[in-house]
Order: sequence, then structure tokens, then C-alpha cells
Amino acid sequence: MDFTITLQECTNSIDAVIYNFLPQEEGLQKSMKEAMNYSVKVGGKRIRPMLMLETCRLFGGNTKDVEPFMAAIELIHTSSLVHDDLPALDNDEFRRGKKTTHAVYGQAIGILTGDALLNYAYEIVANSFAECSDINKCVKAFKVLADKSGINGMLGGQSVDVMNSNNSLDAAHLDFIYCLKTSCLIEASMMIGAIIGGATDEEIKVVEEVARKIGLAFQIQDDILDLTSTYEQLGKPVLSDIKNNKSTYATLFGLDKAKKVVSDYTQEAVDKINGLGYENEFLNKMLNFLVYRQK
Amino acid sequence: MDFTITLQECTNSIDAVIYNFLPQEEGLQKSMKEAMNYSVKVGGKRIRPMLMLETCRLFGGNTKDVEPFMAAIELIHTSSLVHDDLPALDNDEFRRGKKTTHAVYGQAIGILTGDALLNYAYEIVANSFAECSDINKCVKAFKVLADKSGINGMLGGQSVDVMNSNNSLDAAHLDFIYCLKTSCLIEASMMIGAIIGGATDEEIKVVEEVARKIGLAFQIQDDILDLTSTYEQLGKPVLSDIKNNKSTYATLFGLDKAKKVVSDYTQEAVDKINGLGYENEFLNKMLNFLVYRQK
Repeated sequence: MDFTITLQECTNSIDAVIYNFLPQEEGLQKSMKEAMNYSVKVGGKRIRPMLMLETCRLFGGNTKDVEPFMAAIELIHTSSLVHDDLPALDNDEFRRGKKTTHAVYGQAIGILTGDALLNYAYEIVANSFAECSDINKCVKAFKVLADKSGINGMLGGQSVDVMNSNNSLDAAHLDFIYCLKTSCLIEASMMIGAIIGGATDEEIKVVEEVARKIGLAFQIQDDILDLTSTYEQLGKPVLSDIKNNKSTYATLFGLDKAKKVVSDYTQEAVDKINGLGYENEFLNKMLNFLVYRQK
Repeated sequence: MDFTITLQECTNSIDAVIYNFLPQEEGLQKSMKEAMNYSVKVGGKRIRPMLMLETCRLFGGNTKDVEPFMAAIELIHTSSLVHDDLPALDNDEFRRGKKTTHAVYGQAIGILTGDALLNYAYEIVANSFAECSDINKCVKAFKVLADKSGINGMLGGQSVDVMNSNNSLDAAHLDFIYCLKTSCLIEASMMIGAIIGGATDEEIKVVEEVARKIGLAFQIQDDILDLTSTYEQLGKPVLSDIKNNKSTYATLFGLDKAKKVVSDYTQEAVDKINGLGYENEFLNKMLNFLVYRQK
């Protein structure tokens, strides 16, 4: 298979799945529905729903049941970006070359839109229960989604990141932030795919470890690209971590060590998931692509 | 019964239920857990969980099953207050005489704390499923909670309120904002109580209508108090709606009409719920107290 073409086709079909769940732009609250949809449609690699779908396929699961969770995880991720971009946090007017939500709709609607996206993720999940083919799997997936997104997951990581944005960090803090802020949603994605796919509890545990490593490698590759790439390639300013005095894995341990860790984590992750004895060539290529990407 | 004493006892026991679900202040993300707990513990009348509990009791339901939802609805309500108080929205440094969350912890943590509280509500619900005595009831309650909180509920109402904060509103807009922003969480509270309590679909529909009227009367009483009360009684500045050029039911239709509507809606609500043929004297007194309160 030509991976790049397959990846693009996969992204397009995932966009279609997600868009299908977005709110109709109607009613007096139409403007915020537009802001929600703008935030989602403005772009993104759809990595999380893609990992979820492909992990579900790895275990031979019903991909229809995973669709609401694909939309939900992308909405939770989008919600976190919308709030991250606010002036009180990263203060970014552009993301992927497009205006951020608060830059278009103002700060107040930016805040409420992030809230509405986060809540909407759970509306989608709640409304999917009536149609899911196995309620126990869906309840289990819902629990993983909520736990990995919250104070002991992504949002907890973001809080530690924000509170230490002007301090130089040690390895323990950095590891904590990367695990929570980045890995947790990757873990939720792959674990939910595994749960809906019918994996055993032991297999779900392995998938969680795999996802943790992939999340870390993904985040460290982000640090590397900030040091080595260009504005044109990334679509966002480079060398921002150094300018902002931000400790990253790459600034703390150097480029060579960072590259080695990306490579080691990825290999360990791929070996571990292949060790389960299932096969999904696309997922294998995707894991490598994710962490060795150039943008 | 002495209603005031019973009300205070009830509030105390609801506080105990809610506090039981709050996160332990540990881990590197301890500070945001403190901010979450501060936001909840700083006060509130606990109207929503109280209505939920009493509606559950009205139908003779298992009050243990309703506890996670009591905590969840109070957390969602608190999340909305934390974000409402932010400088980009109402810019309030004080609420109920205490510093607001962002005034204590800064704007960035204020934003993330609101997110974490909203998400935590769903973590509590997700984690309660394993222990609930009837999974179908819990799934139904989860759906009501999510739908009434989101873009077609409370958050949708907030967005219309924010976007029209400098415009004079007509009755249709005002009604829409009151229904969504205030009534929806009251509806969710009473409906979830009814669902867990074992009410039929027809009874749940009646409870929804009752809650809608109580929510509207509650909000209009808020408008009345802003015009007629004192800082000492309310614990917040009065005449703020007039100062901020904000259209309210009382400024739009006058005090007399506003008072009549509060009285009519309350009577209709009480008659409707009593018409179901169950009995809960405390709930009856509470509905009257809520809308005729002086603070």
C-alpha cells in the first residue's frame, strides 16, 4: 500500500465520521454552534480517532460502535486546544495557519466554546448508548474517556504545564506533564479502540503501555521539530520553546538523546503491540509515521 | 417541621455527599485539585442536588444511586460559575463575599479548573456505573445530564446571554436565555431524581415541565432581588442589571408583572407536581422557598 495515500483517505473518512456528529447550526445559539464547528473543522491530523479506529480493527471489533467515541475524543482534544490558545494561556492567534477560535469569536465565546465542545463529547457518548451493541463495553469506554481527560489525565497535565511555564523543569516533572498532557488522550484512544474491539483486560493493559510510549515519543518529536524545522514546514513559529524559556525533553537532554528516546520508545511500542499476535499493517506504519513525522 | 432548620440540615448532608466525591489533594497536579475543591467548597445553596434528592424521594427511589449525580450536577453548575466569573465574561472578583477562583489562582488556572470540574462530573458518573443498582436508569440519567448542560442547554443559554450582553432583549430572547441558562440544570436535577426514583416516562415529562417553571420563577426572583434587595442581604452588589444596561424580566416588564409571574409559575409548578399523587412536604416547601427567597 502507498501509506501517504491511504493516510489521506483515512483522514478524509474520519473527518466524515466526526462531522456527522457535529451540531446543526440552528437556533438562537447558532453562533456558538458555528464556533464549535469552526474549531473542529479548522484542521488537525485526527491522530486520536485514527488510532482508536485502527486499534479497534486490530482486535476485529465493530467499527460502527467506535464512531461516537472517535468524535468524542477529537472534540475533547479540540476543546483543550481552544482553551490552550486563549490569551491567559498560550495566547496564540494562529494554529495551523488559521485564526484560533477566540481570535475569530472573542475570548468569552472562546471560553464557552471550549466548554461546549468538552460537554458535547459526553453528549455524543450518552446518546450513543441506546444504539451500541454491547452496553458494558460502552460504559467501560466512557470511563476510560472521562478518566484520561480529567484532573488525573490531560487536564491535570495541562495544569502542571501552565503552573511551571516560567520554571525550568526536572526530568520527573517533564515526564509527568508529557504522560498526562499528551499520552493520556493517546492512551484513551487506543484503549477505547481495544475495548470496543473486544480485547481482554490484559490486552487493554498492553495497549495502554504501547499508547503511553507512543504519546511520549510523539511529544518529544514535537520538541525536536521545534528545534530543527522551519515555519513553512510546521505552519507555526519554530524555536518557540527556547524563546519562551520552556524546558522540553530536547532542551533538557539535547537533540541526540531526544532522537534516541523517540526511536527506542517507538520500537518498544511496535514490538509490544505486535507481540499480541494480531495484525494491522496500517497501524504499524502509522505508529512509525506519527513519531518520525516532519510536521 | 421547622423548614429553616430542616433546610440547613439538608444542605449540610448534601455538602457531605458532594465533598465525598471531590479529588484528594495529592500528586503534582495538587494545586489544581485545591482550586477545584476551593471552587466547590466556597459555598452555594446546593439547590440542584437538593431538588434531585427530594424528587428521587418523592418517587420512593434509592437515594444511594442518586448521590453521584448530585455531586455531578453541582460540579457542572460550579464549573459554569467559575468560567462566568472570568474577566472575559462577568469579571467578578467576589461571589457570595468570597474571592472567585481566578481571583485566587489566576486566569489560566481559573479556565482549566472550570474544565476540570466539568470533566470531573462525568468522571463521577462514569465511575458510578459499576455500583449502580439499575444500569438503564443510570444511562438515562447520564443522557439527561449531558444534554441539559450543553449547547442545547445551559451552555447554549450562556452563549446567547454573553452575545447579547450589550443589547436590549425582547421577551423571546429573554425567555430562551432563562429557559436554557437557568431552567435546564433545574430540569436535569429534578428529571434525574425522577429517573433514579423510578418515575414513568410520562411522570418524567411532568417533572421536566415543573422544573422549567421553577427555573424561570427562580431566575425572575433573582431579577426582582437585584432591584429590591441590599448588598448586605444578597452578599453581592444590587442594581447591577440597571447599571450594566442588562435586560431582565423585571426591567422589561416591571416589578409588579415580574412578581405576578413568579407567583403564577410557582403555583402552577406546585399544583402540577402534587397532581402526580405522591407526597413530599419538604419538596413542596422548598419549591416555594426557592422562588420567594430574599437572598
